[in-house]
Amino acid sequence: MSKLIGNAVFGQSGGPTSVINASASGVFQEALKQENIVKIYGAAHGIKGVLDEVMYNMGQEDPVELNLLKTTPSSALGSVRYKLADPNKDETDYKRILEVFKKYNIRYFFYNGGNDSMDTCNKISKFMQKAGYECRVMGVPKTIDNDLWATDHCPGYGSAARYVATSTMEVYQDARVYDTPMITVLEVMGRNAGWLTAATALAAYKGFGPDLIYLPEVPFSIDKYLSDVEKVFKKTGKVIVAVSEGCKDTNGKYIPEMVQDNLTKDAFGHSQLGGTATILADVAKNKFGCKVRGIEFSLLQRCATHIGSLTDINEAFMAGQEAVKAACEGMTDKMVAFERVSNNPYDCKIKLINLSEVANAEKKIPAEWINKEGNFVSEEFVHYALPLIQGNPEITLEDGLPRFAKLKKVLAKPE
Amino acid sequence: MSKLIGNAVFGQSGGPTSVINASASGVFQEALKQENIVKIYGAAHGIKGVLDEVMYNMGQEDPVELNLLKTTPSSALGSVRYKLADPNKDETDYKRILEVFKKYNIRYFFYNGGNDSMDTCNKISKFMQKAGYECRVMGVPKTIDNDLWATDHCPGYGSAARYVATSTMEVYQDARVYDTPMITVLEVMGRNAGWLTAATALAAYKGFGPDLIYLPEVPFSIDKYLSDVEKVFKKTGKVIVAVSEGCKDTNGKYIPEMVQDNLTKDAFGHSQLGGTATILADVAKNKFGCKVRGIEFSLLQRCATHIGSLTDINEAFMAGQEAVKAACEGMTDKMVAFERVSNNPYDCKIKLINLSEVANAEKKIPAEWINKEGNFVSEEFVHYALPLIQGNPEITLEDGLPRFAKLKKVLAKPE
Repeated sequence: MSKLIGNAVFGQSGGPTSVINASASGVFQEALKQENIVKIYGAAHGIKGVLDEVMYNMGQEDPVELNLLKTTPSSALGSVRYKLADPNKDETDYKRILEVFKKYNIRYFFYNGGNDSMDTCNKISKFMQKAGYECRVMGVPKTIDNDLWATDHCPGYGSAARYVATSTMEVYQDARVYDTPMITVLEVMGRNAGWLTAATALAAYKGFGPDLIYLPEVPFSIDKYLSDVEKVFKKTGKVIVAVSEGCKDTNGKYIPEMVQDNLTKDAFGHSQLGGTATILADVAKNKFGCKVRGIEFSLLQRCATHIGSLTDINEAFMAGQEAVKAACEGMTDKMVAFERVSNNPYDCKIKLINLSEVANAEKKIPAEWINKEGNFVSEEFVHYALPLIQGNPEITLEDGLPRFAKLKKVLAKPE
Repeated sequence: MSKLIGNAVFGQSGGPTSVINASASGVFQEALKQENIVKIYGAAHGIKGVLDEVMYNMGQEDPVELNLLKTTPSSALGSVRYKLADPNKDETDYKRILEVFKKYNIRYFFYNGGNDSMDTCNKISKFMQKAGYECRVMGVPKTIDNDLWATDHCPGYGSAARYVATSTMEVYQDARVYDTPMITVLEVMGRNAGWLTAATALAAYKGFGPDLIYLPEVPFSIDKYLSDVEKVFKKTGKVIVAVSEGCKDTNGKYIPEMVQDNLTKDAFGHSQLGGTATILADVAKNKFGCKVRGIEFSLLQRCATHIGSLTDINEAFMAGQEAVKAACEGMTDKMVAFERVSNNPYDCKIKLINLSEVANAEKKIPAEWINKEGNFVSEEFVHYALPLIQGNPEITLEDGLPRFAKLKKVLAKPE
């Protein structure tokens, strides 16, 4: 085991999830135990906090608060959507990062994020190697989109999926209450991969879910949508549709753009604005003349820790811990990933994969899990996703409301 | 104690809530115990089920399922928005109800709903008395709007308030994640009373809530809204606004109508459509040029039993039980209501009030609980609302998802 003694910094990047702070908690608690890591810092707003020298000394925090991070949604340190330049073209940021790393004696860099963040990790690591500065770099995965390559699934997905499936069941109950026809359209996040939209199939598996599911993996057509809806509508008068915000037609146009086009051509009656759900609901109203409701799960699907998955929270925490352990054991340039050893009973083990392998790659729903009509997913998906949404999180309550972690955020000092 | 032996019917009316089925569970379980009640029926879609003779024999249901109703959202029997005619003008429906009551030997009528439903109860009862048909009529209150007269609060409100407060806290966390300015507008249900919108103040009380709260009780002005937002925006760059869908200007115009008017007059740049949240977010974007997000809690706020209030569920169940007990003891023409005996510790007792007193009356937030600026509520509101949102519901899970009650719905037969 190679010894590298110094400080560590951890950053959160990209869109928030319900469990990104659970990974932070795992990193902090494990780093505070490790002898090789002298101080563990949390960077404000991801890599920006490093560039701007805004880092917090996590050893100064109350251990109770660090543990409460497990059930505190969103990024407690702040996140960022900042893409580092290609180091072959512009080394400015990389030089600055090296300068800060030296100034604070940072020898361990942990970064929590999706595809782009793994790319960031990879570029930083390569630059440090080129500069001859010893620093171990580990990626911790997170994304509600579940689209990271080479891992069975991603922390963040299970909790978002549990929120989406539970809420879909509840909306199903609500949408059937009157004996009049109604079409309900649910809009779920996911720009390129339909994993989260497909989670509405879990509600259908329990008998309280959508009739139709549209994923970005399948080209979308308004005409096909209307004819699909018509079939269900004729039978029951009640239709529930789940649609990904990322659905596109064969020309790569998103649904709002498609409808704008139709507008000028043949008009649906009035001008359209708003999200995909509202638009598809309006389009259905124009055709079927019944009551419609467009519902966007919006930010709630990625921050509703109260209905998160305990499995997901535990795995996110473990991913943070394992990143620290592996780095202290000499590993670098890896991302923590999951490999499903068994599905029933569910058993997932941690593996490490090369950052270069995962950076910027995208995992979509396998074509064989999507039905021929392109408007639902198969039971294979259900068996894949169900184990990921198990268990109620143990939320600490205060006045009947969640008690989020409160951090002191004591600024780190140069060595 | 006067003896009246016969069958009973229970109906659910108006918009669904998280706990309307908890009241149904209370009615059914208590009625099955009472000797005076021979059979307990559930009417499909409220009073429509009586008119159409679609009633289910609840004694045929599995007791486990009847108990699961406690945590099954929305109306298990189906609801209705059907207003009976003024009996002085048209007695058709009343005569038909009397006919069905005689045919099925119905001597007890329990109706679960809001203002309109209590009016329905009252009219039916008066008609039966006039016709000399002995039948006891009891109202069970429910509404997420909390706007029923003469009761401390309404079953349905506590659960919706807990959902709204918890979700607001979670969205607060999410909306602060980037170090860039952002304005978030949350739209909450409530056409005439702001009780549910005010529940966002509970999130603020915990330090994770809105900066501004707009209620239907205060006339709304776009200019005042923009100047309020500007004050917060200048200080922090982050603004969270909670707005009731029922906010109106001094002429009684709702926000979408106000903006449409402004459109033709001085234009906000492009045509507006969609809900209040989207519109207010767009209006702010045009003025401040920053990132905005409009979030509508939509149906979720009234059907998210998974984050319901245990206090509310228990009280809803008890309201159903008490309605049956009181009727069996000889009471009629009453609504079950709540009287707060003590706030700390919270203690609420049941009282019965005359249907005529509550029918069509509306309870709004007291003016002294609203701040002078008309954009927030006082701590008195917080102390009023907090006890109502306490306790986690015990949700039975199956595959990690809620197990809703499944009813056989065996049709009732005439005597």
